[in-house]
Amino acid sequence: MAIVLGANQYGKAEVRLVRVRRDGPRHELRDLTVGIALAGDLAEVHRSGDNAHVLPTDSQKNTVYAFAREHGVDQVEEFGLLLARHFVRSVPAISRARVELTEHGWQRLGPHSFQRDGSEIRTATVTVDADGAVDAADPDGATGGTTVESGISGLVLLNSTDSEFRGYLKDRYTTLPETDDRILATAVEARWRHADVGPTDPGRDWAESYAGVRAALVGAFVETYSRSLQQTLYAMGHRVLAERPEIAQLRLALPNRHHLLVDLAPFGLDNPGEVFVATDRPYGLIEGTVTRTPEDGTAAEDGTAAEDGTAA
Amino acid sequence: MAIVLGANQYGKAEVRLVRVRRDGPRHELRDLTVGIALAGDLAEVHRSGDNAHVLPTDSQKNTVYAFAREHGVDQVEEFGLLLARHFVRSVPAISRARVELTEHGWQRLGPHSFQRDGSEIRTATVTVDADGAVDAADPDGATGGTTVESGISGLVLLNSTDSEFRGYLKDRYTTLPETDDRILATAVEARWRHADVGPTDPGRDWAESYAGVRAALVGAFVETYSRSLQQTLYAMGHRVLAERPEIAQLRLALPNRHHLLVDLAPFGLDNPGEVFVATDRPYGLIEGTVTRTPEDGTAAEDGTAAEDGTAA
Amino acid sequence: MAIVLGANQYGKAEVRLVRVRRDGPRHELRDLTVGIALAGDLAEVHRSGDNAHVLPTDSQKNTVYAFAREHGVDQVEEFGLLLARHFVRSVPAISRARVELTEHGWQRLGPHSFQRDGSEIRTATVTVDADGAVDAADPDGATGGTTVESGISGLVLLNSTDSEFRGYLKDRYTTLPETDDRILATAVEARWRHADVGPTDPGRDWAESYAGVRAALVGAFVETYSRSLQQTLYAMGHRVLAERPEIAQLRLALPNRHHLLVDLAPFGLDNPGEVFVATDRPYGLIEGTVTRTPEDGTAAEDGTAAEDGTAA
Amino acid sequence: MAIVLGANQYGKAEVRLVRVRRDGPRHELRDLTVGIALAGDLAEVHRSGDNAHVLPTDSQKNTVYAFAREHGVDQVEEFGLLLARHFVRSVPAISRARVELTEHGWQRLGPHSFQRDGSEIRTATVTVDADGAVDAADPDGATGGTTVESGISGLVLLNSTDSEFRGYLKDRYTTLPETDDRILATAVEARWRHADVGPTDPGRDWAESYAGVRAALVGAFVETYSRSLQQTLYAMGHRVLAERPEIAQLRLALPNRHHLLVDLAPFGLDNPGEVFVATDRPYGLIEGTVTRTPEDGTAAEDGTAAEDGTAA
Repeated sequence: MAIVLGANQYGKAEVRLVRVRRDGPRHELRDLTVGIALAGDLAEVHRSGDNAHVLPTDSQKNTVYAFAREHGVDQVEEFGLLLARHFVRSVPAISRARVELTEHGWQRLGPHSFQRDGSEIRTATVTVDADGAVDAADPDGATGGTTVESGISGLVLLNSTDSEFRGYLKDRYTTLPETDDRILATAVEARWRHADVGPTDPGRDWAESYAGVRAALVGAFVETYSRSLQQTLYAMGHRVLAERPEIAQLRLALPNRHHLLVDLAPFGLDNPGEVFVATDRPYGLIEGTVTRTPEDGTAAEDGTAAEDGTAA
Repeated sequence: MAIVLGANQYGKAEVRLVRVRRDGPRHELRDLTVGIALAGDLAEVHRSGDNAHVLPTDSQKNTVYAFAREHGVDQVEEFGLLLARHFVRSVPAISRARVELTEHGWQRLGPHSFQRDGSEIRTATVTVDADGAVDAADPDGATGGTTVESGISGLVLLNSTDSEFRGYLKDRYTTLPETDDRILATAVEARWRHADVGPTDPGRDWAESYAGVRAALVGAFVETYSRSLQQTLYAMGHRVLAERPEIAQLRLALPNRHHLLVDLAPFGLDNPGEVFVATDRPYGLIEGTVTRTPEDGTAAEDGTAAEDGTAA
Repeated sequence: MAIVLGANQYGKAEVRLVRVRRDGPRHELRDLTVGIALAGDLAEVHRSGDNAHVLPTDSQKNTVYAFAREHGVDQVEEFGLLLARHFVRSVPAISRARVELTEHGWQRLGPHSFQRDGSEIRTATVTVDADGAVDAADPDGATGGTTVESGISGLVLLNSTDSEFRGYLKDRYTTLPETDDRILATAVEARWRHADVGPTDPGRDWAESYAGVRAALVGAFVETYSRSLQQTLYAMGHRVLAERPEIAQLRLALPNRHHLLVDLAPFGLDNPGEVFVATDRPYGLIEGTVTRTPEDGTAAEDGTAAEDGTAA
Repeated sequence: MAIVLGANQYGKAEVRLVRVRRDGPRHELRDLTVGIALAGDLAEVHRSGDNAHVLPTDSQKNTVYAFAREHGVDQVEEFGLLLARHFVRSVPAISRARVELTEHGWQRLGPHSFQRDGSEIRTATVTVDADGAVDAADPDGATGGTTVESGISGLVLLNSTDSEFRGYLKDRYTTLPETDDRILATAVEARWRHADVGPTDPGRDWAESYAGVRAALVGAFVETYSRSLQQTLYAMGHRVLAERPEIAQLRLALPNRHHLLVDLAPFGLDNPGEVFVATDRPYGLIEGTVTRTPEDGTAAEDGTAAEDGTAA
């Protein structure tokens, strides 16, 4: 039994890019953080330190800035596809490129003035595989698998009522009292995969899709009477897939940001759901995927997929 | 020469309070972090461990929650005054209470649904001194000095043009090229002191004052053609004092969040103010106070106060 | 095509536990953060809000504290196995439990006095699957697969020489000059899987194993003349597997914390590898797995495994 | 009443400097973060944007790197004095320079290999005033007031017993039970001012002084039976002043990192001081200054100084 190199990748992380578009007095602003990870025929650099196949991470960073000038930056998904395809096509040793982008939002205050938009960020992860042959007649055509995941982070939501938690399993270590009225708060972390991303993607409206998914997530959170955060999670994911045919699958990680009702009885006061302590740690963490009936049985593999009565 | 105890204070920091007001189906939400610091006759606890004069920080925390139930929470300045006066009046050994409050904003999404508002926070620091005698006929009357400082943190602003930096002093270590067009970005940290806060404060509109100061700060940032961040700082402070007679003094700390123009020449590209790298460290830090002509000479003390042509 | 629930799990995250052992005047201290994630038959809670299969995350937290009292806390791997097996065996709906533990180190200052040990933390991730039947004659026997991964985080290492980076691929966007002497610095993030973890694990010495792996990682970093961080990564992983037969596989993520040589020529000064600016962002990120020749072909799957001349 | 500029300063913050000394194969490493703040005749830049008196913060940063090459970096206090004196003497408009330095420690692993030392950092704040005239015969002589404050941050200490909290004031909001055995834990934040820092400082041993103060702080924490964290704070400060004649005054800020005993009674278990939950927020914050009997009445000013029986 010998010691061998397994899966590996490398790249530049956290490249900060601010792109101003100056078409006239009214400027447009894009503020991104970009990370790149490349994989391929990299065994020699690991074993002997031969760097012949290694495009420096510094060059990757330069590419981000140069592409921002040459191609502009509009939607993160597009910019990620541009970068990922470039690395796979131009670096012979590289067979897979993954580009992670986060966009920090700015509100407009004036023609060239802006205010940062809180903690909510839009994300995209683009992966391009070069496992096929390049079409000589169309050298720019994508040749391998391409996946695009869009996402959102730091979207903090709270319902001050219409949330209960009852009827759960009690074991020897259960002391939690049941409640029929609690605060439900979470910081939404969502990633959704776009269906049928082909090599050319003509005219996909990424901005409209993002806005639609975001609205579905928020709408379902606000309108669901919650018996558990799991139920709310599923309602959010279900609504996205029901309303957005372009989305194949959505993953959610929802921390349960506990707000504990303060016991004011020692001070002769009641507390009818009015005074809470917001806690940081520990927190519940609810994670789940909502997907479409698999044709290839993928979802069934983990034993948890189950058909849902509501057709998309 | 003996060793002695100097200035000291103690209290509970970072008490997290969420207050829901449930007058009917439409809920109101306040989300605060409160810190308390008490000073007074505390020499014995330090020297002998005699705790007779020490109100536990746990009791201070409980007071925050109980007061939130008894009195409600509307404006941070009011809630701070309530707490600070309580400690000074009810704890004999305590001669000064300082309460620091930060309010985390939430946008309304529905009758009982909310979304967190970014990184911007509203602050208040209330200090109450009990250096006078309590009026036996009016035991609730404030007896000592009271100061209220309101503030804002995490307000990130950016102008993508109308900012230059030229004509500065050059020494042996100066390599920075002059520029007549740069990005100017900062995270506003401001604290302003309210004039004439008396023991009773009848009918001061803290919310309107906050909104007015914030609008003046943002307006001056957006509308000032900037020759330096110092100039922008002074313009922001000047506008607040000019427009808001209730404000006696304003302090600003403005980090200069440098956005560096990327040199794209090695790639055969120009860069006419379009592609920038946003840097974290190091950063310039510009700090200044804008105040009114002092009647007691306070501002002159530091040798930097200078009369301004523009009368308030 | 219907919408269905895919993979999901839930649990309590960031449970903070400090355990003091008071056998006589000399105390022992363990300081852990524990996270639990349970998966199994949880479709109903997602779809209908029926919580019958849900053990509250609050009960999970209580279990951590009760087990710390009942069983003590010695090695994180053991404590994780205890917890993971408990949840799988005692909660009927749960078929998989994953427990993540991080241990914060303390140095002894006295019989009952301690000082926190920097940023370096020891980790363990224990996963127990209940995919087999419980043996009625031995209800405590583990029935499913069990994996234990130990790890280290926040181990920051630096070599001030014996690191070069040359001979790499140059493309249109490459401006980085080659160097034969640079600072190499990284924050080691490592996870290693123990071989042959069985249902009973009699007498495995987790502490000795951890110390041995840590020493191998540090030793390889210090003693390797580095032609790239990839080469250093592989040397670190190879040494661990070569020296520690109990380890089946090791994954490393090594950020390249760039230290840039400052150009002092404008000030008439040279800089022979003496004055550097330590940068935060962007950074290179090098990730790789070192494993043993697979008997089941696992490592070959990703197309990057390659046999190594050095037998373990 | 006109609007005027009050106190102000500006400078570069968070300049990251790593200095390698390469005298032979055994390297020395210094890792600093430096911040500079300059004050003086800066009214015009604020009011009109005239930058003639402004040395760019970029030049300040360059100076840090150039001085590191020209003068080397040994003790933070020395390097801070060098920088502060330079700015006051070389920039005509500047009358005060404050330099803040934090040193990140590294342990030696080999001749040119190092490991970062946790979270503990050593600090220095140097302030130089140019309020006197430069001696033409000795242009390098310091002319104004100079203060040097050394400090420590992030030193986390814990006693698992010998700490009680009893006999405190109880008011209507007090529910905390008295305890005669608790965990006492804190993250020491200390700043101490050196006495009699003159213009030339011949041969002061900053490293020995730092080591001595640190040992006194830790020794007093470990050896004090604590009736309150205030008492421990005073014991720490008193010991520093008693043992270190070169220190004039010491300020401490000690967060009380509460470790709460977990109630295990619901599970049929006792908890004799063994299982604790470590909490983040809220925390007590104890702040105090220990000083020497003032000859100029400074300490008496705040009304809290009180003579101590123990002479230094």
